[in-house]
Amino acid sequence: MWPFALALDLQRGGLEPCNNITKRHLSDMRGMYIDEVATEEAIAQGDPLLYEVNQYDVPFETGQLLVVTTIIQPGRVGDEYYMTKGHFHEREDRAEVYVGLRGQGYLLAETAGGEFEALPVEPGTLTYIPPYWAHRMANVGQEEFIFFGVYPADAGHNYGDIEKRGFAKVLVERDGQPTLLPNPRYGVR
Amino acid sequence: MWPFALALDLQRGGLEPCNNITKRHLSDMRGMYIDEVATEEAIAQGDPLLYEVNQYDVPFETGQLLVVTTIIQPGRVGDEYYMTKGHFHEREDRAEVYVGLRGQGYLLAETAGGEFEALPVEPGTLTYIPPYWAHRMANVGQEEFIFFGVYPADAGHNYGDIEKRGFAKVLVERDGQPTLLPNPRYGVR
Repeated sequence: MWPFALALDLQRGGLEPCNNITKRHLSDMRGMYIDEVATEEAIAQGDPLLYEVNQYDVPFETGQLLVVTTIIQPGRVGDEYYMTKGHFHEREDRAEVYVGLRGQGYLLAETAGGEFEALPVEPGTLTYIPPYWAHRMANVGQEEFIFFGVYPADAGHNYGDIEKRGFAKVLVERDGQPTLLPNPRYGVR
Repeated sequence: MWPFALALDLQRGGLEPCNNITKRHLSDMRGMYIDEVATEEAIAQGDPLLYEVNQYDVPFETGQLLVVTTIIQPGRVGDEYYMTKGHFHEREDRAEVYVGLRGQGYLLAETAGGEFEALPVEPGTLTYIPPYWAHRMANVGQEEFIFFGVYPADAGHNYGDIEKRGFAKVLVERDGQPTLLPNPRYGVR
């Protein structure tokens, strides 16, 4: 394997070249927002793109690293801010680093044991997600929320636990401000 | 371990808080520049600071990640641009990611088997240093060269092999341009 260079747009989140692009529409996240009526309405009205992930794949081996940029659109489903699906790593002891590049967001993180943390992210905020913490990002601003990430290439993703259980808290708009509330559906799906 | 946030200055390379700061003066790199007379003269005239590394230490365990910013001053020792010491990882199969934030530099990389690569780095250039490649950065511009890095926390550093052998090529100024030349002292120390 030979050293290589990518162009990372520190303003807009572009990654060139890029060999693994994922686009998530609301229909890809059915059941993950608390307001199911608003979810179905928005899907019927065009199924909005919520976020795009640009990753440069290298061999998924211990010692290699994956780099990724994520662009979350501004918006809400009901009162709940657009967010990523959220995941544990399949190898749960793998950490991840996120760096905010543009816009205003939050990192939501929690452990299988029920510990929870939320950290605001703005351009230049580096958040460290330790081993064993599931993580999700949400856009609480009026423009795109863009961040850069690095994680071990052998980490893998476990989306299923979060799909089933949700996060302990939801991030909703109340009086124009991002507000954390207990997730009324936590663990009940 | 709990999620945390650091302030990463994407313009100036600051990292706050930061718990591991290294400053390298020219006297810390005796014998690593080809012009030994110029080296000793510059040390006698004040021993310039060549670069500063700001790292946030977490446990040096598999699965954790280290984040680091490096600020290389502009300048040369003789014709050779200011550069970092360069190292293999102690666990040689650990990769590293660098992202240029400010100024103009080069990544120099080589394997123990003699393969060599040089890649120009400017703001937004993400360079990937694969497993088994020693790496060094050099500032070829008129201002500070600043970059951000992420690498596995269990990687460790092996500076000794590069101290003994050097890199296969040196990066010098010729007619005002960065130019790679064979290292006349490669492997002879």
